[in-house]
Amino acid sequence: MSTARLTINLHALASNWQALNAKTDVETGAVVKSDAYGLGVGPVSSTLVEEGVRKFFVAAAEEGVAVRQAVGPGPMIGVFSGHMEGDTDLLRDHDLTPMINSPEQFVRHQQALPDHAFGIQLDSGMNRLGWEPADWAELRQKVEALKPVVVMSHLACSEEPDHPMNRQQLKTFRELTDGIDAPRSLAATGGMLLPPEFHFDFCRPGIGLYGGLPFADAKPVVTVDLPVIQVRPVEVGESVGYGNCWIARRPSRIATVAAGYADGLHRAIGGGIDVFAGGKPCPLVGRISMDLITVDVTDLPEDPERLRILNGHQTVDDLAEAAGTIGYEILTSLGARYSRGYVE
Amino acid sequence: MSTARLTINLHALASNWQALNAKTDVETGAVVKSDAYGLGVGPVSSTLVEEGVRKFFVAAAEEGVAVRQAVGPGPMIGVFSGHMEGDTDLLRDHDLTPMINSPEQFVRHQQALPDHAFGIQLDSGMNRLGWEPADWAELRQKVEALKPVVVMSHLACSEEPDHPMNRQQLKTFRELTDGIDAPRSLAATGGMLLPPEFHFDFCRPGIGLYGGLPFADAKPVVTVDLPVIQVRPVEVGESVGYGNCWIARRPSRIATVAAGYADGLHRAIGGGIDVFAGGKPCPLVGRISMDLITVDVTDLPEDPERLRILNGHQTVDDLAEAAGTIGYEILTSLGARYSRGYVE
Repeated sequence: MSTARLTINLHALASNWQALNAKTDVETGAVVKSDAYGLGVGPVSSTLVEEGVRKFFVAAAEEGVAVRQAVGPGPMIGVFSGHMEGDTDLLRDHDLTPMINSPEQFVRHQQALPDHAFGIQLDSGMNRLGWEPADWAELRQKVEALKPVVVMSHLACSEEPDHPMNRQQLKTFRELTDGIDAPRSLAATGGMLLPPEFHFDFCRPGIGLYGGLPFADAKPVVTVDLPVIQVRPVEVGESVGYGNCWIARRPSRIATVAAGYADGLHRAIGGGIDVFAGGKPCPLVGRISMDLITVDVTDLPEDPERLRILNGHQTVDDLAEAAGTIGYEILTSLGARYSRGYVE
Repeated sequence: MSTARLTINLHALASNWQALNAKTDVETGAVVKSDAYGLGVGPVSSTLVEEGVRKFFVAAAEEGVAVRQAVGPGPMIGVFSGHMEGDTDLLRDHDLTPMINSPEQFVRHQQALPDHAFGIQLDSGMNRLGWEPADWAELRQKVEALKPVVVMSHLACSEEPDHPMNRQQLKTFRELTDGIDAPRSLAATGGMLLPPEFHFDFCRPGIGLYGGLPFADAKPVVTVDLPVIQVRPVEVGESVGYGNCWIARRPSRIATVAAGYADGLHRAIGGGIDVFAGGKPCPLVGRISMDLITVDVTDLPEDPERLRILNGHQTVDDLAEAAGTIGYEILTSLGARYSRGYVE
């Protein structure tokens, strides 16, 4: 076995959903786009439907197919990119609900699937997805008569609770939707941690389910174990890895470990990251290469057979900080080479 | 169709192999680890075996299985991580050749598969994979009697032709292997661009095949086309995307495009990257999110239906520079969500 192992704790996932669900008085859905943030949309969706989730969300119609297979008929599967050209068969055949983003998509949907459920995504200021307020004002009455099953928008700055953009988007969303006869949703994980007026009829967490900030109380969902290929002595002054960028300052033992940036351990990860032998931290040294990392195991009493890089102490957010990114990107980068196991 | 399209030009791949092959007087193999640098190990290996490649290399035994399926019996498939615990069945069943990295691996291989071909990987100073010189001195005679099919090492600084480490590793590799009765290999893409004494009996390019630096003459192999979800007007002073980090300074039209960091468009990519409508560049604006990017298409005569981010003008190395990494990492990050097409 020379590939690393990614273990996904579905109990922790379920527990995170329950903890987030308890934070509001409204329904809680789940965002499972990008293969459930890299963790496997099938097992993740199956677990969440058991917990009671009835509204799932994906980015693209193509992603909805696996969710429908996992959750069976019944739960809504919303598609954030709406009804794009070429999506009609997928939407119909797998009972997916497009979040219609524009008058063009509305026309397309009405022409192609006039009796098929749809939601509405409005832009409340992020200028990324959703109807422009002017278009919405013109067509709201016509759309409302067709009974959208969801009316939603998305917050640009919810991870900063005090950012004035949050209140501004809330105000805009209310102006666009007050009085409408449809369930409304504005909050993902960040928004769920804002006051109740952000919660509307249902919330739709993503990152918090998977153990990431801004849900600081999330249980870690991912463990990553790396097999050690070999351990070697390195003398003072010898260099390790590409570009000679780490040089031993004491007689050292260096473990070469089978995982690298092709496994989502970003090359940008510099100092400050440890790899663990049981509870004992060992510093990553040298440059991360495509399939290999090197670790200083000098202080271990014996050479390790495997080392853990993600655990309950060092999380995706710690790796993200060391790489100059966010936990979301660490998760979605984990890649296909791991052997994967699920704790059920 | 709401997912992006990745097109891999197998003619360009073949042409890059031929161009690299012409640079030396020795045999040229191919490194196809990490799913052929993210481009699909099956089609890539099939193409290269047609061109004449007889020595393939992967990182882990697990990766060798798909190569064997693609190339059929005959060509050598070397495994850089050697013979690890648990690898025996894979090595035997798929006729993979472990590059033995240590005395421990040597003992394991001799006990488990005494008649099965193996290579030797020596450490010539990178301190990452391969035998320590002292262990090699002790066991060389015994190993040599068993006729390794390859004796190899790897350069740490070959992308900097004038780096003194190159000559130092060459000297060490010679000291470790002169007089040996086995084909020797030291050079990957970078080493192939160094003088002939680095080439030994065969070279084993990786990144150059796939269109990346340091092989500056490589033809681009990858094209990425992104579907536009919608285009909206944005007034002066309005912000776009997460964190409000881009603000319009002129009345603008902003396209929201279906691809993001989950598709390997690293979140670290800041300014300086364009997305192309035909030959016309349009700047990426705002923060890259998981599934979406936003593009300023104000200067286009009409709203585009799709935009191209990787083409003959903007390469994986350009994206890498904008993200603060190397082309290798852009390639291996491209991910599973693309619809993939091969130009054969």
